Amino acid sequence: MKKITILGGGTGSYLVISALKKHHVDLSAIVTMMDSGGSTGRLRDQLGVLPPGDLRQCLVALSDAPELWRKLFSYRFESGDFAGHSFGNIMISALEKVSKNYDEVLDELHYLMKCVGRVYPAALTNANIKVTYNTGRIVDSETLLDDPSPDGGNIVKAEAIPPTVANSASIKAIASADYIIAGPGDLYSSIISISLMEGIREAVKHSPAKFVYILNLMTKSSQTLNYTATDHIRDMATYFGRQPDICIVNSEPFDPEMLKQYVSHDESPVVNDLTSDSYSGKIISAPLLDKSAYISSNQVLASKFAHSIIRHDSVKLEAVLESILI
Amino acid sequence: MKKITILGGGTGSYLVISALKKHHVDLSAIVTMMDSGGSTGRLRDQLGVLPPGDLRQCLVALSDAPELWRKLFSYRFESGDFAGHSFGNIMISALEKVSKNYDEVLDELHYLMKCVGRVYPAALTNANIKVTYNTGRIVDSETLLDDPSPDGGNIVKAEAIPPTVANSASIKAIASADYIIAGPGDLYSSIISISLMEGIREAVKHSPAKFVYILNLMTKSSQTLNYTATDHIRDMATYFGRQPDICIVNSEPFDPEMLKQYVSHDESPVVNDLTSDSYSGKIISAPLLDKSAYISSNQVLASKFAHSIIRHDSVKLEAVLESILI
Repeated sequence: MKKITILGGGTGSYLVISALKKHHVDLSAIVTMMDSGGSTGRLRDQLGVLPPGDLRQCLVALSDAPELWRKLFSYRFESGDFAGHSFGNIMISALEKVSKNYDEVLDELHYLMKCVGRVYPAALTNANIKVTYNTGRIVDSETLLDDPSPDGGNIVKAEAIPPTVANSASIKAIASADYIIAGPGDLYSSIISISLMEGIREAVKHSPAKFVYILNLMTKSSQTLNYTATDHIRDMATYFGRQPDICIVNSEPFDPEMLKQYVSHDESPVVNDLTSDSYSGKIISAPLLDKSAYISSNQVLASKFAHSIIRHDSVKLEAVLESILI
Repeated sequence: MKKITILGGGTGSYLVISALKKHHVDLSAIVTMMDSGGSTGRLRDQLGVLPPGDLRQCLVALSDAPELWRKLFSYRFESGDFAGHSFGNIMISALEKVSKNYDEVLDELHYLMKCVGRVYPAALTNANIKVTYNTGRIVDSETLLDDPSPDGGNIVKAEAIPPTVANSASIKAIASADYIIAGPGDLYSSIISISLMEGIREAVKHSPAKFVYILNLMTKSSQTLNYTATDHIRDMATYFGRQPDICIVNSEPFDPEMLKQYVSHDESPVVNDLTSDSYSGKIISAPLLDKSAYISSNQVLASKFAHSIIRHDSVKLEAVLESILI
């Protein structure tokens, strides 16, 4: 059975896990422990727990539990003391409070959710990502990397504060993988943040695994402003110690209507400028857009800007991943 | 296997379940759905869910799940958005939000907690208890029945607002019981409140079960001010339609130090004035005090008044219940 280790944040890894879940593969997902926004950030600040959000999404993706449990875990309270918190986040946090150690937390969660794979926190202590832009600006919290860039800068350095050692189980999952799949997801806050845990970079660099990178569909102003595919590949190589062997890019045209709101936020489709001259890996170009996201866009556009309007389609991605893995 | 149906609030029923759990009996617990204080009251108000608190305590008492799950379910958050809420209450509330109906909620909870018996909410809709005192004062929320009485009155009438039909499963548990055990617990807010659900009184009245009442150790100023055992038995008979067949009373002397704080709140030991002339049932008098609660009292006395300083001992109660049931 092929061993696949997925690197990324909650949303992107959910997608990749969903695409691979029904296949006969051994799935691991490594999630960053630098998430500091929303429900997760509040739990982290108020209770001193590790950030539960990305872990929760991967557990649900890997779950073979009855639909009710998956719904429960993802349920987000809309009012009262819990407004904005998802039940799964609360449960993971409470479990951390009553457990001997985080391994026990993970064991219980995987058991409860009947997971068909395993999620590994990249680290077992709290840390923050600190990035420095070429404008001199410094940002030291993951949640601020969701805000629009105020000065048009690009990130020139990312580090973990404090320096943090990786969870040894995540190192093992990388070292023993046949395939490492990174992305899609916010390049710095969801993916490169994992590489900042001491030991991860070396593990990826020396792993015998094929290193697959699923390129983002859109740039993100505070992390990858004006980035092309080449820029993404370059940063991946810098932080993970090796260039991805395979890069999966979308070939499907975007609905111009959909792009309008992104453009007004300095965000645009990632241009695929990879050529056999500039990139020694394999480029797989395929239609990958989730059209259902398109259709519901009018509603979304009418309200506030959501980065998730344009997203990958899990079934289309499944077909591409199948072709690589089989 | 003898069928035992327990009527009461979370704390009292926890005690009785704990006393009976290891015995070869078929346990059911019926809990009031009128609780409106603390974490439960906030969840009820903010989310529109049924009150989870008493249900949670009985589930934990009946649970054969690993210690970690029982700890998790009882874990109370100390800080942040959730301060004061127990995890179990949050879980029951979220489960109600994602489930088709409350039977599904109960099925999932019993399965998760590996319960060796079953908890039945007395009703499946929200209701409040309204009581009228002989001073004319009216109180229409369960949580206010925890406050000290401001006027020295006694309750002359209790009703459900709005009139509420009992959960049919709780009626069945009463009708098919060999023993119905009520108490200990707040006479009006935890026990008589159950009788106010339409159908419960008739079910208790006509049940072939022996009706056992575990008398409270102490009076409670807002519910049973100056009540003797006879007063308790009278009110039980009024609201449940029949006099208890057996009344279990404590014979152990109280530590005068322990009583001081109760006395300053107009609360005192319930005097056992039952005689074969005044009460046709069987009186079982035995030492029932929890001495461990005694020992830790200095700490408790130093802080705020807790009604729970003086409480029944589960092991002593177990011996008495054994003698009845076997």
